[in-house]
Amino acid sequence: MVHEVATIPGDGIGPEVIDAVQPVFDDVSERFEFDLELVRYDWGSERYLESGSMMPDGGLDELAGYDAIVLGAIGHPDVPDHVTLNNLLLPIRKGFDQAICKRPAILFDGVESPLEGYDGGDIDFVVYRENTEGEYADMGGQEHPGHGHEVAVQSAVFTRTGTERIVRAAFEAATEREGRVTSITKSNAQAHSMVFWDQIVEDVSAEYPDVTVERLLVDAASMDFIRRPEAFDVVVASNLFGDILTDIGAIITGSMGLAPSANINVSGEYPSMFEPVHGSAPDIVGDGVANPLATILSAAMLFDHLGETEAGDAVWSAVTDQLADSDAPRTPDLGGSATTAQVVADLRTRL
Amino acid sequence: MVHEVATIPGDGIGPEVIDAVQPVFDDVSERFEFDLELVRYDWGSERYLESGSMMPDGGLDELAGYDAIVLGAIGHPDVPDHVTLNNLLLPIRKGFDQAICKRPAILFDGVESPLEGYDGGDIDFVVYRENTEGEYADMGGQEHPGHGHEVAVQSAVFTRTGTERIVRAAFEAATEREGRVTSITKSNAQAHSMVFWDQIVEDVSAEYPDVTVERLLVDAASMDFIRRPEAFDVVVASNLFGDILTDIGAIITGSMGLAPSANINVSGEYPSMFEPVHGSAPDIVGDGVANPLATILSAAMLFDHLGETEAGDAVWSAVTDQLADSDAPRTPDLGGSATTAQVVADLRTRL
Ligand SMILES: CC(C)[C@H](C(=O)O)[C@@H](O)C(=O)O
Ligand SMILES: CC(C)[C@H](C(=O)O)[C@@H](O)C(=O)O
Repeated sequence: MVHEVATIPGDGIGPEVIDAVQPVFDDVSERFEFDLELVRYDWGSERYLESGSMMPDGGLDELAGYDAIVLGAIGHPDVPDHVTLNNLLLPIRKGFDQAICKRPAILFDGVESPLEGYDGGDIDFVVYRENTEGEYADMGGQEHPGHGHEVAVQSAVFTRTGTERIVRAAFEAATEREGRVTSITKSNAQAHSMVFWDQIVEDVSAEYPDVTVERLLVDAASMDFIRRPEAFDVVVASNLFGDILTDIGAIITGSMGLAPSANINVSGEYPSMFEPVHGSAPDIVGDGVANPLATILSAAMLFDHLGETEAGDAVWSAVTDQLADSDAPRTPDLGGSATTAQVVADLRTRL
Repeated sequence: MVHEVATIPGDGIGPEVIDAVQPVFDDVSERFEFDLELVRYDWGSERYLESGSMMPDGGLDELAGYDAIVLGAIGHPDVPDHVTLNNLLLPIRKGFDQAICKRPAILFDGVESPLEGYDGGDIDFVVYRENTEGEYADMGGQEHPGHGHEVAVQSAVFTRTGTERIVRAAFEAATEREGRVTSITKSNAQAHSMVFWDQIVEDVSAEYPDVTVERLLVDAASMDFIRRPEAFDVVVASNLFGDILTDIGAIITGSMGLAPSANINVSGEYPSMFEPVHGSAPDIVGDGVANPLATILSAAMLFDHLGETEAGDAVWSAVTDQLADSDAPRTPDLGGSATTAQVVADLRTRL
C-alpha cells in the first residue's frame, strides 16, 4: 500500500516539529509494511515575505492529488495574521471541504493539569468543530472608512449541509464512546444562527435515541471546561466556539504541545489534513525544544485515517507510554528540560 | 441626596439575591446619609408565561427616569433563552446605550481558585466588554427553511462609535491601574470586523503613550486566563468575546457567585445597570443558598457610579473582610453550607 502525503512545515516551530516526526514515519511504515511517500512544500510566511504569496498559484490543485496533508504551524510576527491564515490554512480547510475538525482533549497519565485535583485519566473528551463556515465565513465589509459613522460587518454563515454534517459526525462519534453529546451555542444572543443550529441538533438527535444531548451556552461551556471537564464526552461546536473551546481543552489537559487535530473531508474527494493545535510559537523558534508530541499524535490520527489503524495505535500507545514514564524526557512546556530530538529518540524506542 | 433606583429581580435566584441586598441598601444609605428610593419591577419569565411579554409596553420608558437599575437574573427553563434575553436584558443594555460593561475579576483573599497554585490576591484584572453591538447585533435571518440549501446568517456589527468608546474606556481605566491593556480579537479568521477593531486600538493607543498594549487572539486569551491570569490588568473585548472571557474570569477567581458587573451609559442620558454576572440558576432556586455577594459587589459599583464612593468602598471592604475571614459563613458555591440570609447577616456586622 502506498500513501502519498504532502507535508507543509509552515512557520516558526512548524518545520521543527515536522522534521521531528520524520523518523516516526519511517519506523512505522517499515514496521507495518506500507509505503509513505512524503512530499514537502515550503509554503508559508517566509515565502510570502520573499514573493508576496503564501503558496503558489494553483497550490490547492497541487495538493489535491495527495491522500492527506500534514501541516506544522502557520503564523509569523512580521506578517499580519489575517494574511497568513487567509492565504494558506483556511483556504485548505475550506477549499478541500474539511468539514469535520476532530480534536481530542485527554489528560494523559503522567501529565499535570493546571486545574487543581485533576490527575491523568480524569479528562477525556473530544470536540467536533465545524471547520468550513460559521463565524469564519469570509463575508462582510466596511463602510465610511475613517468617518464617525464607519461600520464594519462580519457575517457568520451556517448552512444546513454544513451544520447537519458536523452534528451528525458528533452523534456518530458518541455512539462509539459514552453516548453523550454536548452542543454549544449562544442562542440567547445570536438567535438568527444559533436557534437554527439548535433545531438541527434536535432533528439529528431524533435519529440517535441512545445518545443523550446537553445544550450549553458557549460562556457556560468555557466555565464548565474548567469546573467539570470530566463531565464531557463528545462536544459539538461551531467554527469559532470550537476554536475557543479546543484551546481551553488543550490547556486544561496540560499543554498545547500535546493537542492533535484532524481536519476531515468526509466525502473523500479531497485530502484531509492533520496538524497540531498549537501555533508557530515564535518565542521558542530555533531553540530545539518544541514539543513534537502534538504533531506525532496528529500523525497517529493520520494513520487511522489512511486505514493503517495498527500503525495509528502503535504511535498513540508509544506517546501515552512515554508520558506515563516519569523518567522519560520531556520538553519545557511539560516541565522538563529535554530537546525535541531527545523526546523523539526516546519515543522511537517505544514504537 | 436622593437616588432613585429601579430593581428588576427577574427569574430564578434573581429575586433571592435582590431581596438579600435590601438590608445592605438600608444600612448603607442610613450610615452615609443619602436617600435610596428603590422601586421594584416584577418583570421576567413568570410574567411572560402569564401574559406573553417579559415587560409591559413602554417598559423602557418607565425605567428611563431612574438614576440606575439593579437587575437580578434572567433565564427560565420553560422559556427559550432567545425570548427571555431579547425581550428584557438585551433591550435594556442596547436601548439605554449601556456601552461599557465593566467586570472585575479578582481572586479575593480567602477564596480558592480551581487553578493550582493561585492564592488570594494573585489575580486582579478587569474586563471592559463592549455591550451594545458586535456579535450581539440582532441582524441576520434564514432562507430556504427546511431545504438542503437552507442558510442562516448572523451578522456582527461594529461601529466606529461603539468600538472607540469601549477601547477608550479601557485605556482610561488602565491609566488608573497598572497601565496595561490587552485587546482581544480574532483578526486571523474575522478580518472584516477584527482588523477594524485592531485599527481603532492602534489609533486610540496613540493618545495614551504611557499605556502598553498587548493584542491577543480570543482562543489564546481563553488559554492565558488559565495559564497566566496574573498577567492581565485591563482587558478589552467585543460583546461575545467579553461574555466568554468574563465567565472564565469568574470561574478562575473562585465562583460565579462573586462576579459583579456594571453596564454603563457613558453619556448619562440613560440609567446604567448593575447586575451579577451569574444567571438564574434554576437548580438551586428556592433553596435559600444563592450567593448574594455578586449582587452586593454590583451594588458597591452602583454606589460608586452614583457618586457615593464612601458607601461603595464600605460595601466592597465588608465583602473582602468577610471572604478573608475563614470563620465567616459561606454559601455552598464557595464550599460552605451557609444560607444567603446568614451571609447577609454577617456582612451587615462588617459594614
Ligand atoms: C490559526 C487560526 C486561524 C486557527 C483557527 O482559528 O482555526 C487556530 O487557532 C486553530 O485552532 O487551528
Ligand atoms: C444572559 C446572556 C444574554 C448574557 C450575555 O451573554 O451577555 C450573560 O451571559 C452575561 O454575561 O451577562
